[in-house]
Amino acid sequence: MNFDYCNPVRILFGKGEIAKLSELIGKSLKVMMVYGGGSIKKNGVYDQVVKALSERDVIEFSGIEPNPQYATCMKAVEVIKKGKIDFLLAVGGGSVLDAAKFVAAATLRKDGDPWDILLKQAPVKEALPLGDVLTLPATGSEMNAGAVISRAEFRQKLFFGSPAVYPKFSILDPETTYTLPPRQTTNGIVDAYIHVVEQYLTFPANAPLQDRLCESILLTLIEEGPRVLKDPNNYDARANIMWAATCALNGFISLGVPQDWASHLIGHEITAEYGLDHAQTLAVVLPGTMQVQRDKKKAKLLQYAERVFGLTGGSEDERIDAAIARTEEFFRSVGQKTKLSEYDIGPEACDVIAKRIGKFPFKLGEHQDIDDDKVREILKLRV
Amino acid sequence: MNFDYCNPVRILFGKGEIAKLSELIGKSLKVMMVYGGGSIKKNGVYDQVVKALSERDVIEFSGIEPNPQYATCMKAVEVIKKGKIDFLLAVGGGSVLDAAKFVAAATLRKDGDPWDILLKQAPVKEALPLGDVLTLPATGSEMNAGAVISRAEFRQKLFFGSPAVYPKFSILDPETTYTLPPRQTTNGIVDAYIHVVEQYLTFPANAPLQDRLCESILLTLIEEGPRVLKDPNNYDARANIMWAATCALNGFISLGVPQDWASHLIGHEITAEYGLDHAQTLAVVLPGTMQVQRDKKKAKLLQYAERVFGLTGGSEDERIDAAIARTEEFFRSVGQKTKLSEYDIGPEACDVIAKRIGKFPFKLGEHQDIDDDKVREILKLRV
Repeated sequence: MNFDYCNPVRILFGKGEIAKLSELIGKSLKVMMVYGGGSIKKNGVYDQVVKALSERDVIEFSGIEPNPQYATCMKAVEVIKKGKIDFLLAVGGGSVLDAAKFVAAATLRKDGDPWDILLKQAPVKEALPLGDVLTLPATGSEMNAGAVISRAEFRQKLFFGSPAVYPKFSILDPETTYTLPPRQTTNGIVDAYIHVVEQYLTFPANAPLQDRLCESILLTLIEEGPRVLKDPNNYDARANIMWAATCALNGFISLGVPQDWASHLIGHEITAEYGLDHAQTLAVVLPGTMQVQRDKKKAKLLQYAERVFGLTGGSEDERIDAAIARTEEFFRSVGQKTKLSEYDIGPEACDVIAKRIGKFPFKLGEHQDIDDDKVREILKLRV
Repeated sequence: MNFDYCNPVRILFGKGEIAKLSELIGKSLKVMMVYGGGSIKKNGVYDQVVKALSERDVIEFSGIEPNPQYATCMKAVEVIKKGKIDFLLAVGGGSVLDAAKFVAAATLRKDGDPWDILLKQAPVKEALPLGDVLTLPATGSEMNAGAVISRAEFRQKLFFGSPAVYPKFSILDPETTYTLPPRQTTNGIVDAYIHVVEQYLTFPANAPLQDRLCESILLTLIEEGPRVLKDPNNYDARANIMWAATCALNGFISLGVPQDWASHLIGHEITAEYGLDHAQTLAVVLPGTMQVQRDKKKAKLLQYAERVFGLTGGSEDERIDAAIARTEEFFRSVGQKTKLSEYDIGPEACDVIAKRIGKFPFKLGEHQDIDDDKVREILKLRV
């Protein structure tokens, strides 16, 4: 398929790169540093950033939560407008960065409700410039132009995207991830893996290079994931996970090929309804999506079975079963639960989530054929 | 290794994309269309471009030769200065695009000899904006910031690079490559393959993802190369070759890893001295470089043998021998000669080229250990 691609994000990767903030942000700029719950104060990242920006006028906005909330973002917009901020620096993981992207867009929105950016996909033509210091490899937000924002009172979790919110730069220092709690490391590995699967496990589109790029990332995550959990201060493993997570969602592997994203959309609803971490929902949902869509995904499932897990023996059905089982095993091997009941969610969730999806104005998946019935079927396999 | 990467080139890929030129180039801009020997007039590309730009003020500059010449470029600079050109549109292959990049840089150079950009690597801080319609997948110039220019009277072929010469956009329509002469199709496949090898076949640097990305491109070229030669109007095969060649040298696969480029530098000297096509020189030199550097490249050669050619049997030395032989066989399978004598160049060339390299102010290769003696040794294997 034809494509139109431009990814202008500058990536500075490696230990010590945070110090370059002093070159990356103009001296005359008034900066708002956006961060989360304060883990960056414990692991030294905060100090590194403050030192690098010591000659800048910097104000801080903390308290961005996981699944960043619309209300929090709008508070930041107010502070920015009062403080005449020129540049946003997100320091943290995908949630902090997504919040900064939305804040950057909402700040420059001239008329109308900023919520429309998410709810109605109102076009975002301009945004405050932003950059980031990434401390949690997972979402790929550091090298893409999308963000997901939640609104607790409506139990909604929605996406928007615009080239205006590409970060001007992203600093990826693997050392900042040494102190991540295992749960976040695990989430990051699983999230990155499933980002790739959403762009890979569809139907053949004569794109052998894109296929292999996807398999390259999956194999790297399978190799490096367990290594990093066993040895959290292993720079090499941390670096490989970090770079794999960025490559998993910078738009490059999906050029010219169909995409799925059903597991993500189902997962978003589980997070909105039950509060699970994003990656937790994905590890629950994906094996069900693979199973229910196995006929339509057959060719790619067989390729995945062979190239990612080396499964070549047995019938086609046996190989597909084995590939789905191996996928779930991989998630469990990096410490992720894969069933709703493990999160104390009962079988009634199948119906609750199916009904939520039934209200969407579109069906899910690369064939747009996943409706509420299919969602119910998928989730019944995951209770 | 740490890295700093930003590639802002917008890629428009697929059939029919040339028509978008009318949106890509501002209506008020005065455009110079730069092209080569006129093949674009035979295959319809010229007409498509002229139609898309019908409302623009366009002048033409044709006659860019393979291994584009400094003198030709400087003529273009004169025309641009007289004609107050705002935008350069290169239409053709890597030579035309490289020429446009140098012209763009030389036009805005304020003082000093423009030749210094190549000879002394004088920094290029600004350049006329440029875009391109690529008709020959090979050099990767469409998505990088480098160019190679030759100067016949000095028998020199030199490189320069600067972010200022990244194309604003590159249009890649695989249909434009249907009418390529087999020699150019072959050259493109071999050139792209060896670009990857230069960035891959060095020593392990704990970069499993970069390694696999390289192997992905090599495997794609090995699969699609013979297909495209057998069936030149196969859109899918042409598209895969075109995208693989771009990915082979857009900077992405070399992030954080060592690079070789010895075969390229030796090849440039062969072109400068004997006039062979760039890719012809590479297919001659590379098997020699692999052989002479086999101990230092051992770990990567074994990985290459296994992952690219499936060679797992026999001793390490046997696997390396087989991998080198298979590489040469691949070049021959797509119609490329691999020995100097096949181009009527005698064994005296070994000494001629070694002496030229001996004058370089540096040694070649990822260990900077390839001097004139080693070049002689490499070439003696290729007579």
